[in-house]
Amino acid sequence: MSADWFDQMPKTHRWLVGVSGGADSMALLNLLVDQGFRELVVCHLNHRLRGAAADDDADFVANAADRLGLSVEMGTADVPSLMQKSGISLETAAREARQDFFANCASRWQCPRVILAHHAEDQAETVLWNLLRGSHGCRGMQRERTMGDLTYFRPLLGVRRAELRDYLRSKGLPWREDASNAEPIAVRNRLRNEAMPLLAEISGRDLVQALGSAAESDAGLREIAAFALHQAEVRDPQGRLHLPKMRTLPVALQKAALVAFLADAGVGDISRRTISCCIELLSPEGPTAVDLANGKRLRRRAGRLLVESQHGQELD
Amino acid sequence: MSADWFDQMPKTHRWLVGVSGGADSMALLNLLVDQGFRELVVCHLNHRLRGAAADDDADFVANAADRLGLSVEMGTADVPSLMQKSGISLETAAREARQDFFANCASRWQCPRVILAHHAEDQAETVLWNLLRGSHGCRGMQRERTMGDLTYFRPLLGVRRAELRDYLRSKGLPWREDASNAEPIAVRNRLRNEAMPLLAEISGRDLVQALGSAAESDAGLREIAAFALHQAEVRDPQGRLHLPKMRTLPVALQKAALVAFLADAGVGDISRRTISCCIELLSPEGPTAVDLANGKRLRRRAGRLLVESQHGQELD
Repeated sequence: MSADWFDQMPKTHRWLVGVSGGADSMALLNLLVDQGFRELVVCHLNHRLRGAAADDDADFVANAADRLGLSVEMGTADVPSLMQKSGISLETAAREARQDFFANCASRWQCPRVILAHHAEDQAETVLWNLLRGSHGCRGMQRERTMGDLTYFRPLLGVRRAELRDYLRSKGLPWREDASNAEPIAVRNRLRNEAMPLLAEISGRDLVQALGSAAESDAGLREIAAFALHQAEVRDPQGRLHLPKMRTLPVALQKAALVAFLADAGVGDISRRTISCCIELLSPEGPTAVDLANGKRLRRRAGRLLVESQHGQELD
Repeated sequence: MSADWFDQMPKTHRWLVGVSGGADSMALLNLLVDQGFRELVVCHLNHRLRGAAADDDADFVANAADRLGLSVEMGTADVPSLMQKSGISLETAAREARQDFFANCASRWQCPRVILAHHAEDQAETVLWNLLRGSHGCRGMQRERTMGDLTYFRPLLGVRRAELRDYLRSKGLPWREDASNAEPIAVRNRLRNEAMPLLAEISGRDLVQALGSAAESDAGLREIAAFALHQAEVRDPQGRLHLPKMRTLPVALQKAALVAFLADAGVGDISRRTISCCIELLSPEGPTAVDLANGKRLRRRAGRLLVESQHGQELD
């Protein structure tokens, strides 16, 4: 079960582990201990979404950590009121609460590494959800992802949910049945309970595996694209986009270079439409400037593209 | 409606157009005529899947072409018996029959260009189907694709089915209601009638648009990957894979280079698993050969990878 990852990671380092008390994270925790990881900090967040049951989850996790001789970090975030206050979705509020919680744990324990229990079914649902949202192709979660100072690891992305439960049963280990559903997100649940079974039935194939390979293929293509963009060296020493170099690239790479350039310049809301307008600037016969969000403007000057304010001042 | 494509293509050239008589292809045909394309050859294939109705389809298409003053090519393929004889699926048999038909038309008319009426809904279903099959990520159809001597064009990939029917209605033009379903493929129909509506309802978004952008994003990434592979120049003058160069590349690009190399060497059945084994050859401490399909073998020798027979003879 993901033996590679467990073999390769240094077991004497300290690691934070996200543990809800549900089957997935209890399996992860016990697998890590089995594999010889000793410096684990069990991190449990109460999202205030499960009422009194949440206190039982917390007790359950604290007891499990205690039996394994591991340290515990307990946190509470009032996700419902966070949602209301900021007018964000439950999914976003829960994610932000978790990021804050792990950032706090990381700073208290001087440990920038978090292990999470997402498995193959979670990955499949993520791919499908990203696809339906239309903004991320068929991107999945990454096995290793650095955000700010923290790196998140997901060693179980290739492991099926049933394998994790089999493992717990074979060891006689308990879990809290609903704790892993700490975020009862309506859309996610409908994807899991309605869409996935229908699609699997129609295709007659292993849908979780199919969506998992789509995510892997997508991740590989993105890795290549990042490399190609780096190799293309499209910025001049002042950090402007160098048009003669841009023009040697295929259109898709020109667009990727523009997206990266505008993001670095702090331009928000970079839509596909915006990029199509900006691409016109590459042609010497095209327009010489395109208005962007936040009062910014992309201008062609002397064979370069640069971002300026709408008063014509160049921005770093 | 896809005005760009219609504007850019030379209207005085000869073009083959696939016309079933259904709304999509009738709209395409009339749009092309509206836009000033004159040298069109209307190509209609009877798949022998619609019994007597197929003859009415053929008459309908012939009459429409006649009214427009266009040439017609009528073909017949016995798809059901093709399926039985070769033991292939209906989808594959129908595709092969169409390819043969267009190849014949192309050679009779000395015209290597075919225009097809696939639209945004067709594209969305293709993305979903590829995703469920698990072998092609979320790849869609391409706007322009060369296969052998023929190039297929799909100018309507961004246009919605309803727009095409609105266009026909606004012009008072008739079509054959079921002719576009000349291939009643069970899986496709279930995707269209069951999966797509459920997914659209769950996501609450425009699913056709979402799947269309996933296909576009995927096509862009593949364009970049092909460029990156070309730029990487991983083959030596003898066409072998140059390991010192390979080792400077990210893993995903190494894998892409291996896939292309093995495909060029005529190795069939290049699975993800095969590639993972072959990647081990890159390491000087790894194995020195990996057995492949068809009695072939990939060997590391003197800083190169080459394909040889299992008797140790190098293959071109």
